[in-house]
Parts: sequence; C-alpha cells; structure tokens
Amino acid sequence: MLSYEPLTPTTFLERSATVFGPRLAVVNGGFQLTYATLWDRVQRLAGPLAAAGVRPGDRVAVLAGNGHLLLEATFGVPAAGTGCRLVPATEYGQLVAAGEPLLVRVEDELTPLSINYTSGTTGRPKGVVYHHRGAYLQALAMALHTKLDAASSYLWTLPMFHCHGWCFPWAVTLAGARHVCLPKMEPGEVWRLIREHRVTHLCGAPTVLTSLLAHPDAPADALDPRLLACVGGAPPSPALLGRALQAGIDVIHLYGLTETYGPAVICQPQPEWRGLPIEESAALTARQGVGNVIAQRIRVVADDGRDVPADATTVGEIAVRGNDVMIGYHRDPAATEKAAPDGWFRTGDLGVVHDDGYVWIVDRAKDVIISGGENLASVEVENVLVGHPAVQEAAVVARPDAHWGEVPVAYVTLAAGAHATEAELIEHVRARLAHFKAPKAVVFCELPKTSTGKIQKNVLRQRAAG
Amino acid sequence: MLSYEPLTPTTFLERSATVFGPRLAVVNGGFQLTYATLWDRVQRLAGPLAAAGVRPGDRVAVLAGNGHLLLEATFGVPAAGTGCRLVPATEYGQLVAAGEPLLVRVEDELTPLSINYTSGTTGRPKGVVYHHRGAYLQALAMALHTKLDAASSYLWTLPMFHCHGWCFPWAVTLAGARHVCLPKMEPGEVWRLIREHRVTHLCGAPTVLTSLLAHPDAPADALDPRLLACVGGAPPSPALLGRALQAGIDVIHLYGLTETYGPAVICQPQPEWRGLPIEESAALTARQGVGNVIAQRIRVVADDGRDVPADATTVGEIAVRGNDVMIGYHRDPAATEKAAPDGWFRTGDLGVVHDDGYVWIVDRAKDVIISGGENLASVEVENVLVGHPAVQEAAVVARPDAHWGEVPVAYVTLAAGAHATEAELIEHVRARLAHFKAPKAVVFCELPKTSTGKIQKNVLRQRAAG
Repeated sequence: MLSYEPLTPTTFLERSATVFGPRLAVVNGGFQLTYATLWDRVQRLAGPLAAAGVRPGDRVAVLAGNGHLLLEATFGVPAAGTGCRLVPATEYGQLVAAGEPLLVRVEDELTPLSINYTSGTTGRPKGVVYHHRGAYLQALAMALHTKLDAASSYLWTLPMFHCHGWCFPWAVTLAGARHVCLPKMEPGEVWRLIREHRVTHLCGAPTVLTSLLAHPDAPADALDPRLLACVGGAPPSPALLGRALQAGIDVIHLYGLTETYGPAVICQPQPEWRGLPIEESAALTARQGVGNVIAQRIRVVADDGRDVPADATTVGEIAVRGNDVMIGYHRDPAATEKAAPDGWFRTGDLGVVHDDGYVWIVDRAKDVIISGGENLASVEVENVLVGHPAVQEAAVVARPDAHWGEVPVAYVTLAAGAHATEAELIEHVRARLAHFKAPKAVVFCELPKTSTGKIQKNVLRQRAAG
Repeated sequence: MLSYEPLTPTTFLERSATVFGPRLAVVNGGFQLTYATLWDRVQRLAGPLAAAGVRPGDRVAVLAGNGHLLLEATFGVPAAGTGCRLVPATEYGQLVAAGEPLLVRVEDELTPLSINYTSGTTGRPKGVVYHHRGAYLQALAMALHTKLDAASSYLWTLPMFHCHGWCFPWAVTLAGARHVCLPKMEPGEVWRLIREHRVTHLCGAPTVLTSLLAHPDAPADALDPRLLACVGGAPPSPALLGRALQAGIDVIHLYGLTETYGPAVICQPQPEWRGLPIEESAALTARQGVGNVIAQRIRVVADDGRDVPADATTVGEIAVRGNDVMIGYHRDPAATEKAAPDGWFRTGDLGVVHDDGYVWIVDRAKDVIISGGENLASVEVENVLVGHPAVQEAAVVARPDAHWGEVPVAYVTLAAGAHATEAELIEHVRARLAHFKAPKAVVFCELPKTSTGKIQKNVLRQRAAG
C-alpha cells in the first residue's frame, strides 16, 4: 500500500545498517559489531530459529546477560516472525555463523513483539506483552527526549531485560549511536567505560546514580563530553539530583512501569529551570512529570475514576493508556481486566497533580504507611533522610504496631566513611516533618535490591515484621 | 482500548498546551500566543466551523499568509472533525473570540488530514491528500533529525501551505518551540527576526539561503545561538553549502515532494564529515541521501521497476512508499495510479545510488537535456556555474535545436556588485565539463520563482524556445 507500512522497530536497524553501515554499533568487551554486521547477524539468527521450527506466535526465551546476544535477539527473534523455546547460549556463536539469513516482515503492528516480566517487588512477576507499534513509538520518543544521535555513546547500566531496556535497544539503534555493553553494574568499571567510550547517555534506577557518585572514580569536574543520566524506576531524591548536577551530569527524570514500555512519563525539563538555584530545580525535577511526546495524557484518578484537581494536594492513583501501554498480561486476562477496569491502567502509584500539570508521586499504594489512621508517604521520609550528609540511601517501610496499626521503620546505608547514630537521624526527621512521620527505629545495613537496582521494600517489610 | 490510540498531530498541541502552557508558541509581529492560548483558540475555531455546518469529510479552504491564522487552522480544522468552505479572513478574529470550543477526536488515523497542492513547475497543480498517521510520524522525524526542543525558535521562511510546511507546524509544536511567523520572505526582515528572536531553525529552498547570504545584513561571524538551515526543494550547490558553513550556519539537506509530506529523504550527516575539508563535506551534503527515520527505504528503480546497483553511475527514477507518502491525488485516482503503477510512487527525479547507500539526484526527468543523443543533467552545469565567484544563481534549460535536438541555455543572476561576461561563463564551464555541456548562451536576469522559492524552469524553457 502506497501510504501505509506497519510500524515495527526492526525497520530502525534495517535503516541504520544502510545509513550507518560501517559505524560501530556494539561494543561488548573485546567483541565489536558495526551496524552492517549487526543486521547481518540478526538475520542469521532468524534463519536458524525458523529452521528449528519457531513459527509466528511462538515465544523464544533468551537466557543471557546484558550483552550483544540479548541485543541481537531483540531484533533477530522478531525477524524470524515470532514474538518458549530455549536457545542454548553456548552454541550461539555457531548458530549465527552457520545461519541462513531470514527476515519475516511484520504484517500487523499490533501483534506481540516481546514479553517482559515485572520485577515482583509488589507480587508475583507477571508477563507484560508489548506490540510492535508501541515499541516503535516509544523508541522514537526516547531518542527525541534524550537527543540521541550518531555521535552518541550509550552505556548499558540498565538491564536490557527490564521493560526491554526502556526501549533503548531500539532508540539507540535508530539514532545510529553506539551500544556499550556492561555485563554487571560495578561503579569502577562504569567510570572506566564512560571515559574510554566517551559515553553520553546512560539509564538506571536512582540507586545506580547514587553508587556511581559515591565511588572514588567519580569525576571532580564536569565530564567531556557531558553525560546525560536518565533516571527512573523510583523517585530520585532532590539531594541526589543536586549532587549529580554538581558533578556536571545532566539528569532527566523518567517514570514508568514494565506495563508502559518503561518511561511513559517524563519530567519534561523547562529551559528556565537551568537558571534556578539548584535546590529549586532539583525539587522540580524530582517530580514524575507529564506524558512523553507519544504518550496519552497521564491521569491521576480518584476511587470513582474521575480526575483529581491539579491542586498539588488531592491524592489519586496514576492511570495511563495509549500506544505505549501493554496489550495485557501474558495468559492472564483476569489480571489485565483487574489492572484496567475502565480501560485505563492503574499503576498502583499514588500522586498529586501540580498546577503546572506535572504529576508528583506521593508513594506507591503498597508503600503507604497508615499510622494512627493517618497516611504517611514513605518517600517523603526517605527524601528527608537522604538529605542528611551522612546518608547514602534510605528506605522506609511499615512495621505492624499494636497501638498505631503501623509505624515507620528506616533502613539506611551510610556514605563511605560517614557516621551517624539512630537517634541523630530520627531527630533529623522530627525537625523537618510532623513528629509521627519520624521512624521509630533506624537499621544500618546494605539495602536489598532487585537486579534492576530497585530497593526490595517487600523484603524489608518482612524483616521489619519478623 | 488500553494499548491503542489513533496517531494524529492534534495530540502534540494538546500535550504542549499542558506541558508548555505559559511558553510563547507564536510570534506574529506584535500578536503573540502562548501554547495554552493557541490550544484554546484552536478549539474555539473548531466550534464555529462545526456550527457553520462543517462535517467530517468536508474540506475547509483557508486563504491566508504565513501567519498565526494558518497555524491555528492547521490544528483547528481537524479539531472540528474535518479534513471547501471559505472562512473569510476578515471575520476571523470575531469568529474565534465568540467561538464555543470543540474537539472532535480522530477515530481512524488513516483518514485525510489535509490537502496540499503541488507547485506546478512540471504541470497542473494536483491536490495531495495527507493522513493523520503520516503527519504525526513525519513531524516526529523532523523534530528528531533537527533536534527541536523547547528552547528552539523556528522562523517561518518556508510557506506553511507548501507540503504543509514540511510538517514543521506539528514538529515545532510537539517540541514546545517558538513559531516566529514571516508574512513575506525579505532578507533584511529575516536577519532582523533571527537576531530579535534568537532563531535556531529555519527551512527553505536553496534560493532562500542564497538570497539571505547575499544580503548585507548577513553575519560576518557565526551566529549565537547557531542557526540550522534545513534546505530542500532543489539540490543545493556545493558552493552554496560551502558559503553557509563559512558563515557559521549548519545546513541539513532534505529532499522530498508534496506527495511525501515534504522531506521523506535526508542527507543524514555523519559525525566524521565535520572533520573533512569544506569542499569535500559540501559535496557529500549536496546529495539527497537516505530515507528519514520513519520513511521506508528510498529506491532508485530502472524502467523495469528493479533497483539499480549502488554504483554511483546507473541512473534510475527515485521511488518511495510508506507512512509519509500521500494517500493519493484528490479526486484523481487515474493520476494516482499512473504515479504509482506498482505501489511505489515515482518521483520524477532521476538519481544514482552511491556505494554508501546515499541517493544523488542527477536531474528531474523533465529537466534532462538531450543533446546529440547524449543525456545532459542541467543540475551538473548549474553547480559549475554557481561555483564561479560572480554568480549568485543559475538555471540551465533546453532550447530546441535543429541540429542537436536540444542545447543547454543558462539563465544567470550575478552577485551584487559582481561582473562576468557570457563568454567568460561559457569558458568557465568548458574548462570543467565535457564541451557539449557548456551552455550555448547565457542570459543575465532575475530568475522566475514560485512562491516557495523554486526556480520555474518551465517558464525559462518557454522563454528559451520563444
């Protein structure tokens, strides 16, 4: 048809193989691929998959770290026309070397492209089904908002398996930028790769940026080229944003879920924020923000499904729908229906709308602490705790209490070489918030995290209760 | 539906009204609109249109210059649910002031959005029908390739009625950038607006850039902020590109037609080009290039419909299809069928494919001069002529000749204060090209142009024959 082509991110790699053929596409330790070679290998992966009997509608599971194999599978599995069979990683090199190239064109852009599992901090991991159209549009949005281009170098601090790498496998590829792989998040190695490959972009949870900035190899002055850190998965504290800006790292705060292809929401930076005092701009940037350029308007809804007023006070649940919202949960229509009772997906995050239209998350619904009948946002207490100079990270969870129902307990990691007592931190919070919000206890420890760097509050809640 | 929203560029303005509400959206002389006000006025235009009986499927003609009215109609007419009724411009202010706001949601993204007329340099103007999906995607591509953002300021040197302003009404809007209107292309006024509004982006035919650079107000040093000129509609000469770069103006060369929403093709700049000598990088940039990020692969096909080899020599016709290709010609299915006999739209432009995959236009099919049985590309001769320091612009067309069939004749505009004789320019070409390519005559004059700045070769051919 003259005026219609199905939207699929496979076309981005096909284009980059033509336009950026000799450019370095993937750096994976000593293993490197140009865009032309990556496209060739992707088709040579598709051939053997089809030859092994994989058919459209089948699912292919990939067991691999954050490297070129996962990137190749991202493009190669759809190129075979599919969207669980186990491809043994040990034979991968031979498989691709011997493969007959294949490229099956996508006919329906609304068919499944990929299944991504939720991290399970609030329950059993669920399979989230993405379609081609959503990944295509979300990739364009990510490239546009982060200004990726052929001179960019992207470091894979974010696991590719997490929300399919926030669609950056496709965003980086459409820009003709360089994928710098990182098998394991280790701050010293990250700083080495940033300097060696002149990295311009990376993504991750706030804890990733926190651990990078706490490392002795962190730069004293602004990096050249400047680094853009896209932070999401949890609200970054104003203190962390302030520290990053001081280190010359630009930060974009993104928000989303596995169910929204990663960042459906962006704290869209306004040019005027650059001129503000750092504390003020950090407070603005710590909000979750607005729908990205291809997202539908982000709503904050009351229990009756109606929008809350933009008064920065009335709390509702964040609700989304549109091209970057999942088709549904894999083989679980009941869970899909429950999550989107009226066609708007309920995120489980509670927020308010500021008068500039920006959404600010008060807390995850499951993380709210109800103490003496009062709602207490764990995030608010955490932000105050990490404002203390000795605190590197903090998580606040509910502990069952016979009198109050629940009381807040804090788990804290101190900065390297820093000291603070339990009493000192409790007093720090009491001096800044209503007294009932101060933690009843502070535990100093490493915080348990998922492989994507999210703090496992469910684990901490069990500890607190036990 | 949870995971589907029709693609329509109306959503870009709706988003920018929320995200960039107080930002200046439109500057039209002393008349200014914020994004919030623009969105309000657009809906207040839609209301009266519907009240006047305009219904989905109707066409609304707008008679207006390059100003806010045309921008408002770009969004307001679709907001009324339509895609010829005459809205009298004199009553426009009252119409909008009194209007009841209306927003009709688009249900089918493949329905017509806008009808754009071809400029008619090669025949009778034809109505080209765009759909919502195409304009949406093309706008994203333009914003991505030109890095528009909320700090950008876009000057309307390109007529908005021409290929619907290459989809920049939507691209500038989705970025939250500023539209600086320009009723009439006058170089002194352009330089004044560039300096007053810190313009970062403009588009136009090469002749627009030529006349800007020839004006005494052109900057001696690089502008601050730097200016990106997106040039298309005709192949810019290497000489012009070289002059622009010397003046500190970045140039992106775009190529397309009314039938392709403007620039379906981009001479994608490679980071390495910046390090090349200016003549070399200018020669690379003067090529038309590759499909833009949302376009399908651009083909160059022989008469039998097969791709020509990428040997930089074999000439074929450029053929396109995809989401940024027209639905068809308005009420002219025969012309649509003729232009796309096999589902690929034939552009009428003849080109070759270089070994890096970039397409280079040899000439428009109708501009090729056949002299003594040899094909002679008018563009090649023009590029040599404008390389002469005294020449500002040149057009070469065929004059019927009893002996040779056709011979080339040059029409030349000299640079202000410069001098050159007919014999001198003919010798300049003979020294650089095969002798039969040298013009048989040189006429010094102003070149006739369309309102979009395209040189009217059809007019010159008639002059040459007469």
